[in-house]
This record gives sequence, C-alpha cells and structure tokens, in this order.
Amino acid sequence: MDHYRVGIDGGGTRCRAAVAGADGRILGRGISGAANILTDPETALAHIRLATEAAFQEAGLPASGLSAATAVLGLAGNNVADAVSFIAARLPFARAQIVSDVLVALQGALGDRDGAVASLGTGTVYSIRQQGTVSMLGGHGFKVGDLGSGARLGQGLLQEALLAHDGIRPTTPLTEAVLAEFGRSPEAIIAFAHTAHPADYGRYAGRVFSAAAAGDAVGVQLVRMAAGHIDQTLDAIVARGVRTLCLVGGLAPLYRPWLADRPGIAIAEPAADALTGAVALAVQASASDPFPNHREAAQ
Amino acid sequence: MDHYRVGIDGGGTRCRAAVAGADGRILGRGISGAANILTDPETALAHIRLATEAAFQEAGLPASGLSAATAVLGLAGNNVADAVSFIAARLPFARAQIVSDVLVALQGALGDRDGAVASLGTGTVYSIRQQGTVSMLGGHGFKVGDLGSGARLGQGLLQEALLAHDGIRPTTPLTEAVLAEFGRSPEAIIAFAHTAHPADYGRYAGRVFSAAAAGDAVGVQLVRMAAGHIDQTLDAIVARGVRTLCLVGGLAPLYRPWLADRPGIAIAEPAADALTGAVALAVQASASDPFPNHREAAQ
Repeated sequence: MDHYRVGIDGGGTRCRAAVAGADGRILGRGISGAANILTDPETALAHIRLATEAAFQEAGLPASGLSAATAVLGLAGNNVADAVSFIAARLPFARAQIVSDVLVALQGALGDRDGAVASLGTGTVYSIRQQGTVSMLGGHGFKVGDLGSGARLGQGLLQEALLAHDGIRPTTPLTEAVLAEFGRSPEAIIAFAHTAHPADYGRYAGRVFSAAAAGDAVGVQLVRMAAGHIDQTLDAIVARGVRTLCLVGGLAPLYRPWLADRPGIAIAEPAADALTGAVALAVQASASDPFPNHREAAQ
Repeated sequence: MDHYRVGIDGGGTRCRAAVAGADGRILGRGISGAANILTDPETALAHIRLATEAAFQEAGLPASGLSAATAVLGLAGNNVADAVSFIAARLPFARAQIVSDVLVALQGALGDRDGAVASLGTGTVYSIRQQGTVSMLGGHGFKVGDLGSGARLGQGLLQEALLAHDGIRPTTPLTEAVLAEFGRSPEAIIAFAHTAHPADYGRYAGRVFSAAAAGDAVGVQLVRMAAGHIDQTLDAIVARGVRTLCLVGGLAPLYRPWLADRPGIAIAEPAADALTGAVALAVQASASDPFPNHREAAQ
C-alpha cells in the first residue's frame, strides 16, 4: 500500500507539517500555531491536524489521506509520558511516533551521519549521534541552564543597563540605547523582567550581537562570555570523539565568528531543517517492520 | 505629653517591633510574621500590630499605649504609593512614618554619620548618606539585579551542578554534593528551579562559602565572581567620595575576607541593627515639629 509520510516539527510558537511520498520527496507543507503538548495539549492536537491538512491541501491531496499516513512528530515534552500518551491516542494518523524536537533537528541537519548539532536560539541545547546512538547535552531551561542562549544574552543586557544607570559600570551606546528605551527608569526594566518569558529577553539578542560587531564594550563582553559557554560545551563534545559539528538556530550565524577554531573538526552546514528531518524519520519508520503501535511513543 | 516611640523593621519573612521612651532607650521588643505590604497588606497590618503589642507586653506597658505612640516603620515597598496609603490609613499609632527598610538599616548601622551600608543577604542593596542626604544603589531584584546576593550564588551553584552532570565542567566536591542531593537528576534540579523563590536559592549560599573556604574550585569561582560584583559597587561608592563603608546582612561576615582592601577607607562595624535604627528615627521624628500627618508617607 502506498500511503503518505508526514513529518511534524511542533514548538511553543508554531507547528509545521510536511507530506511526502514513499521516496521522501516533500509534496506539500503547512503551518499553524503553537503545539505545546505540556501546557495546552488540546490546542497542540488541533494545530498538528491543521498544519497537516494544510500540507495535504498544498500537495493537492485529499484530507482523507491523513488516516492512512505514517507520521513522525518532533515535539518538545516528548519525555513526559502522560502528555505523550494523551496526544498519541488522539492523532489522526494510521501510525505515528512522537520523538524529541531535538532529534528531528539532528536528523535534518546531519541526515544519518554521526556528529553533533548545537541549537542556538532563545534556548540552547546540544544533540550528539555516535554510532547511531543519540544523546543530549545542555539545555535545562532559562533558569539554571541555556547558557549562551538569546534569552540569557538579553537578560545580561538589561542587567548591564541597570549597572550603567547606577554608575557601577561605564555606559556604552548599547546600554544607553536600552536605558533610553525604558525611559531611564530602573522600575520600568524591573517591571519588564517581572513578567518576561525567555522569548521576551531573547528579542534583545540581535542587538547585543550588532553592538558587539561594532565594538561596543558591553556587547563584546556579553557575547564573549556567552561564546565561552558554547565553546566549553563544544570542547566537551569533541572530547567524546565527535568530529563533525553543526550549528543551527537563529543565533548560529551570529555566533560563528566568536567561537574558537578547532583544528581537525569540521563545522558542517546543516543539510536541511527539522521539518525535513521529521519527514526523513517518517520514511525510515515506514520502511521498518514491525512499526511501533501508534499508541507507543519512541525516543 | 510623654508618649512612646515605636520602631518597626518589617520584611518578607518577619516583622520586628521595639518600643522606647522619649530618650530612645528600648523598653521591649516583639516579633511576628511577614509584613509584605505589596503582596499581602492585610497580613502585614496584622503582623505590625501583633509585633508592637508583643513589644508593649514585654515592656510591661498596656496595649492601649499604641494609640498614643509615634512610630517609624521601615518597610520594603515604601516607594509604592498605593500600598503605603492603604497601610498608613490603618495603622494603630497616633502618628507614623513609613520609610524604606534600607533607610532604617542605614540608621541602625551608621547612626547619624555619613557613609555607605552594603546589605548582603538573599538580595543585595546599597545605601549611601552624604551630608545627610540618602541615596540608594543596586538592588533591582533577583531577575536582573542583586548581583553578589545569596540567591544569585545559589542559582549559580545549581547551574554549575548541571554543567558538572553534563561533563561540560569538572566535578568538585561541592557540585558532587548538590547532584547527590538531587538524586543525580537534572529534571529534579529543573523542577526545583521552576518554583524556586530567591530565598530558596539563597539557602545554598552558606555551602558555597564553606566550600570556597576549603578550596573547592567551583566554590572559589562562584564566590570570587560574586565578590567582584560587590567590589565594583563599593568602588563606585568610594568614587563618590564616601569614606566609611559598613557591611550588614547574613552574608556580610562571609564576604569580608573575599573583598578588596581599600587603603584610606574605613570598614565600620554596624553600630546597631535596623530595628534600633527605626526606633532612633521615631525618636527624631517625635522631636520634630510639625510632625507629618499620619497619612503622609515620607521617604
């Protein structure tokens, strides 16, 4: 039977889906809203279905094809059993696997090769494949982890702005601009921080990199410290015998010039994105026999 | 009329009160629970009254004396007008001033002298008196400020424990102990951090100092970085012309050996605590004429 393969890349702000034939060639793509299976599983389910229907529509395929499809879903929260079993039992597909969002990013970036992928965005997390076995490093979230993340950079910038305001450290154009934006009011910065999510801090990361590139002392200091954290993690990964590194995520191109050179270690461009990785895993899963029961979540 | 003077030192975990005669000599002390006028003003009011009644009882004075007393209350949140007017209108005293908790600490530590007081505890904040004028520096809370605070030290320790767990940084006895306490589970540390208040992180500060004193590499690194932040602030204060520094708060004796020497600058022992400072301000206020209306909050 020639059923379709579906890949899903779901996250806290949007859900992307792609449909492919048996050869893995993508026929159509769709996008919808947040798919956070921990905080709002009903909405996640609705958005998974919506994005997939949009992909089928773009491919000129009838939506009835969903119920015959094999799907692999890369979703944050895949290690929380209750959330996964709730979702898995309600998916519209013939067969489905829920895997880590990081695993589909790894598959997209490296294909089937060994190596490590550093995801550098609002958060930071590292995935490693060695002789086919995947492990993870870092992450752990904004509060006690995610070193070098956009959120941490933004938080550091607001902190430096307050130190400049108090005359504890010299003012630079970067901290001056932030202070002006908040009306030179420490209270306004504190109020922002009181309700800020990591993504809210992360929106300042681009400005930190721009300022650093222009030689702003605070920008340079913040980026150097963050790049130092990333370098430490990459060193630990290389020490495990990994020889191929790949940087993905919105901050990857910005960090590249600030990271250490590692002789003998290749920095590979990502082959494809996470959505393509999810489709590739769906094609592999479809070829495997026996395929896991659709209620079973595989890592 | 010979009414009594009341000093109140109210904070997020407890409220202390003292009653004194016209000469400022303390006759009795009382203690009760949290007095946070921002998050729970009704409870704060109840605890202010309870602590004061306990002080009158210890002094052998009738509780009816409250309504004739002159009080100065050092309360965090004194710069939030709505909270202050709510409290001020409901206090049981004849006349009252609500001032900053930091001001009563400064008065206690320095008396009427010029100088600066560094409050080093779960948070950090600095107060400066120059030619009688009081200003503040630092603070700004756990999220984007309070550098060198116990809360920041504790957060840093958990972060280092996770880095050790991931093999990104070497393990030390300190991080090993923390990991063991959390069952070597990153998820357990993340869950703790998810709901941790600054005081929860701050409870780890003492162990960081103990480990640093024993030469633990992570302990030394965390304390050196935190002490560096405090030294930067003290440098900025000295640059303003301040010649007397005073360290107060639970971490003050622990930080002392890690801070830079400043030739020509005196490190003064605090003359008294914040409660005594509040009483001294009440005695001064009582002598001033006209005394501010009890509904008026003064800084």
